[in-house]
Amino acid sequence: MAPLASYVSGAWHVPPDEGAPLYDAVTGTEIARISSSGVDFRAALEYGRGVGGPVLREMTFHQRAALLKALASELRGHREELYDLSLRSGATLNDARFDVDGGIGVLFSYSSKGRRELPDDTVYVEGGLEPLSKSGGFVGQHVCTPLRGVAVQINAFNFPVWGPLEKLAPAFLAGVPSLIKPAAQTAYLTARLVELIVESGLLPEGSVQLVCGDARDLLDHLTEQDLVGFTGSAATAALLRSHPAVVNRSVRFNAEADSLNCSILGPDVRPGDPEFDVFVEQLVTEMTVKAGQKCTAIRRALVPAGVIDDVERAVAERLAEVTVGNPADPSVRMGALAGLGQREEVRRSLKALSAGARTVFGDPEHVRVVDADPERGAFLSPILLRADDTGRDEPHEVEAFGPVSTLLPYGAPDEAVALAARGRGSLAGSVVTGDPEFARAMVMGVAPWHGRLLVVDAETARESTGHGSPLPALVHGGPGRAGGGEEMGGIRGVLHHMQRTAVQASPRMLTAVTGRWTPGAERTVTDVHPFRKHLGELRVGDTVVAGPRTVTLADIEHFAEFTGDTFYAHMDEEAARANPFFEGRVAHGYLIVSLAAGLFVHPDPGPVLANYGLENLRFLTPVYPGDELTVTLTAKRIEPRHGAEYGEVRWDADVTKQDGSSVAKYDVLTLVAKRD
Amino acid sequence: MAPLASYVSGAWHVPPDEGAPLYDAVTGTEIARISSSGVDFRAALEYGRGVGGPVLREMTFHQRAALLKALASELRGHREELYDLSLRSGATLNDARFDVDGGIGVLFSYSSKGRRELPDDTVYVEGGLEPLSKSGGFVGQHVCTPLRGVAVQINAFNFPVWGPLEKLAPAFLAGVPSLIKPAAQTAYLTARLVELIVESGLLPEGSVQLVCGDARDLLDHLTEQDLVGFTGSAATAALLRSHPAVVNRSVRFNAEADSLNCSILGPDVRPGDPEFDVFVEQLVTEMTVKAGQKCTAIRRALVPAGVIDDVERAVAERLAEVTVGNPADPSVRMGALAGLGQREEVRRSLKALSAGARTVFGDPEHVRVVDADPERGAFLSPILLRADDTGRDEPHEVEAFGPVSTLLPYGAPDEAVALAARGRGSLAGSVVTGDPEFARAMVMGVAPWHGRLLVVDAETARESTGHGSPLPALVHGGPGRAGGGEEMGGIRGVLHHMQRTAVQASPRMLTAVTGRWTPGAERTVTDVHPFRKHLGELRVGDTVVAGPRTVTLADIEHFAEFTGDTFYAHMDEEAARANPFFEGRVAHGYLIVSLAAGLFVHPDPGPVLANYGLENLRFLTPVYPGDELTVTLTAKRIEPRHGAEYGEVRWDADVTKQDGSSVAKYDVLTLVAKRD
Repeated sequence: MAPLASYVSGAWHVPPDEGAPLYDAVTGTEIARISSSGVDFRAALEYGRGVGGPVLREMTFHQRAALLKALASELRGHREELYDLSLRSGATLNDARFDVDGGIGVLFSYSSKGRRELPDDTVYVEGGLEPLSKSGGFVGQHVCTPLRGVAVQINAFNFPVWGPLEKLAPAFLAGVPSLIKPAAQTAYLTARLVELIVESGLLPEGSVQLVCGDARDLLDHLTEQDLVGFTGSAATAALLRSHPAVVNRSVRFNAEADSLNCSILGPDVRPGDPEFDVFVEQLVTEMTVKAGQKCTAIRRALVPAGVIDDVERAVAERLAEVTVGNPADPSVRMGALAGLGQREEVRRSLKALSAGARTVFGDPEHVRVVDADPERGAFLSPILLRADDTGRDEPHEVEAFGPVSTLLPYGAPDEAVALAARGRGSLAGSVVTGDPEFARAMVMGVAPWHGRLLVVDAETARESTGHGSPLPALVHGGPGRAGGGEEMGGIRGVLHHMQRTAVQASPRMLTAVTGRWTPGAERTVTDVHPFRKHLGELRVGDTVVAGPRTVTLADIEHFAEFTGDTFYAHMDEEAARANPFFEGRVAHGYLIVSLAAGLFVHPDPGPVLANYGLENLRFLTPVYPGDELTVTLTAKRIEPRHGAEYGEVRWDADVTKQDGSSVAKYDVLTLVAKRD
Repeated sequence: MAPLASYVSGAWHVPPDEGAPLYDAVTGTEIARISSSGVDFRAALEYGRGVGGPVLREMTFHQRAALLKALASELRGHREELYDLSLRSGATLNDARFDVDGGIGVLFSYSSKGRRELPDDTVYVEGGLEPLSKSGGFVGQHVCTPLRGVAVQINAFNFPVWGPLEKLAPAFLAGVPSLIKPAAQTAYLTARLVELIVESGLLPEGSVQLVCGDARDLLDHLTEQDLVGFTGSAATAALLRSHPAVVNRSVRFNAEADSLNCSILGPDVRPGDPEFDVFVEQLVTEMTVKAGQKCTAIRRALVPAGVIDDVERAVAERLAEVTVGNPADPSVRMGALAGLGQREEVRRSLKALSAGARTVFGDPEHVRVVDADPERGAFLSPILLRADDTGRDEPHEVEAFGPVSTLLPYGAPDEAVALAARGRGSLAGSVVTGDPEFARAMVMGVAPWHGRLLVVDAETARESTGHGSPLPALVHGGPGRAGGGEEMGGIRGVLHHMQRTAVQASPRMLTAVTGRWTPGAERTVTDVHPFRKHLGELRVGDTVVAGPRTVTLADIEHFAEFTGDTFYAHMDEEAARANPFFEGRVAHGYLIVSLAAGLFVHPDPGPVLANYGLENLRFLTPVYPGDELTVTLTAKRIEPRHGAEYGEVRWDADVTKQDGSSVAKYDVLTLVAKRD
């Protein structure tokens, strides 16, 4: 059997040596071999930088998002194959779905976020304009551009599909090529995934590479523009993070390490309450899904001392119903660990834990299995521990990366917070309670130690995405022991792959740099009204100045009567004067923007299709009867929408009065046709 | 002379030993001694965590911001004293202003940003709500809470006042106590600064500590919730970043290292053009301010090959006019380096640079000085180098941290980009050009290697804040060689000191956690109209439901005629039908929000003072003649404003029509009185 091939520098590389064997987690038979012999890491990184990067950077965020969506659809067509292959890793169909569908879901999610939250452009303009001089002639703006390196993605064995896709999606969307290095145990799954990606021909050459086997000198060749994303143990994270190339070249290093996550049961919950069952059910799920091999799994269940016996009993009862065995058997709820090595490690951790906790369910050495050999397959019973002496460190320090959890009692809520903090940083925590006050106290108390916190009550239990599920829209990662990183989290995950640069310039220069009109830059008043221009004809800076229109007291009274808005500041001179902001009756804000629209619109049928919204409207100066309004409307951002007959145009609206002061500023959002 | 005292654990600690001498940079006489003997670092960190942190976390962002402002005013009253002391470090009055006024400016800036951009609350709610279930019954929201540790701030010698204040401001605003460790050479200035802070009594005890002298075992005692902010050499940054406690506990480590920053002259600029003079003037300024001891100074001046002789001549002419000497002498433009050691280091670097560049101005061994002994004081001539062979590495790798810069020629713009990138990551770069296209090409080309980029043309030269000035509102830090960090950058700098946590919950629970009404949470319709409630009576969730009001064709026509907004979609049935979004004539968006206001306002004089704006308005479904509108307005955020008689209330507005679909959603921003 030849070792798994790596996909580097545009070709599949088959290692020349025999490699090391990989075993079926269920049967113990050899299923693949692995080696990175002969892989030229320096060349692979340079290939990514030189071939993948430039092509990706030519694309806009929307183009990359469209490719992610196409890839997601393509992979969805191959789900069954990946499920089947997952059986060999000990995963049940449910586990495989978590991994495979979860990974595909991340692609869809990033594709959708990319289209909705990123521009159809190659540069991301972040945050607002910062005025840097009194006159407004010198301003600052943060922009983000893709790093020119490769995102080296070192994944863990437990999520061979979700893991790489979860890192690929934001990197790809950012315009940064990926080099994927799976953990050995389940590398055959990731290898097949990358094969499917390559075969699809959807992603540009050089944007995805794969290295199976040891990383050897990979990190030595990192440069200042590369990134490392690591998922795995805290110990390995520390090792990689101290690598001289990482340290000396300030390589962005993101670690997501398994942690001793906790779930807290509220003191309001009594046995028999729906939240009680939710807590027990969630704990059992977290212990048994992926045979507890989840970096987000609940390792510490914190329960009020008064109900710990009830919780123990209920959890044990439910665990007793968990069928362990060959994941191909439909009656099996929990499959095998990823290999015999993992099982040995869990047993070692359990020995260490036993100094601070006693086993109340399960036997690390024996488990009844269905349709499999309990010794050749990496099977382990779910193990529930209980630590009545909360002064012991073991439950907060020793992680058994398998179907293992420890019950710990707490007294006052402060004690629960203190126990949670003893994990020294976690990826995820949960609070099961029906009491909003307790929820607030817990979240505020334990948030500094958590990347993600879930609050569950009976009402939301069905809709909850669960304690252990990282979500593309939310940050994944936690402080301290959990590695101190942040993955995903929506667009944050994309920006992690980009350099944020503060650009200081005049509005004119900034307009040129960002392609968006910057307040203070020239406005172009042309003979043709900008509402008469199609998207392709319109230029940022195109402007219409219209007015003046005098606002009379009759206008205000008429508008009040017509709309019903007879607020005292418009109707009652004395009351208006008593108001700290007004010198007398003022025009309605809604009247001002309505009149402004009356001034700036061009009435005839034309390319402007609709006003779909308004942003950042601020009323700056009161308008009194007799004031004359002028409006200046300038095309600020022009974004064609892919696959549509129109695009979005954002206009800068500035309504001024006779003394030149602004009375209202806002952005008008319109849809404009690409052509007739 | 007793060594400088440290301020730790609530008391001034005078070291029991003699300490090491510190010398006046101008006269070479001993001016202070320094030692950290006897400082208990573990205790100091615990004091910060246990005494400073809890008090800071009790305060809201606005309260902390107010203290920063008070501190800034207090320090401003002591400027002269700090200027005088700065003379001893070799700084001219201009240099001292850069350092002292710059530092005080950071405090003012963060105070102002804190009040404008952060809530009057202890938790920061970041970004939008993430829907996590179809029904909207389960949602995600990122919140940021202060880390529970200490921000250890290791500063460089060149900015003894600005450096510590630039790190203190965002940490303090975040609610995290600081421990300041100045570099030895100029520690007497930082020590006096901290003395002024302590004497002011403004900041809570434990929120600021000072350690003069060696850091010894300081980092050993870091925990997962502490942070390190380092400014200094890349080599020291690498050393600290690899410290076992930093690595193993995932301590947030931010480095800002000096880098080989470049300034690029555009090919459009000819001798005699105003931009030519701007470029020369800026280069000379960056070489001579602080005697070139600025991590942002221009080390590489990239100029079109055709004008390099002209640039060399012009710079040399200007440098010849620079008077070097005792900074107390008003004729002196450039003072001394921080010490004789620094001068030796610069001379060593100049030797290394000479392999790749020749000296075209200045002599490293000789300089004429005014009112000082050129050997006892750390004086050095400005040195201009020129590297015609751009293939050499030295100009891009060797930094002489003094009044030294190298001219390099480039041909095509791509060459300028490639040369800039050879610095392997810079804090700041600048482009001097009058050509917006060249500016865009340079910014897009070199942005991935820069934390900050300045574009200067003749028009903005006067308003420009300059190549070398980090600004509180903009990120300070750069990739790779520059350390890979980000300091300041407005609120980003504050969030760096906080843990971002994704909270997943039902809208009801999330409302309890964040104190803001979350869409989907219950609304409270009370007998009293919410516009009749003062700020203290109003509760998030308080709601008014008003309507329905039928929109007639007559309303639309009347509104069109009244406002002048006769856009075809409102007036012309056929043209409206031809529009891809409408089935016929539609009501104006402005009419919808105007009628909604007419429905929800309470007309009588009362606590609602003004509608000051609108946010996130989206028109979701067209409104046709005959449709009936209902509006639901719910108090979403209630923020009393400190020192004012009113506060801000943000309302969630949802306008629906008869079938229940939303036609418009937006936030209404009002000012509401605290009492009658």
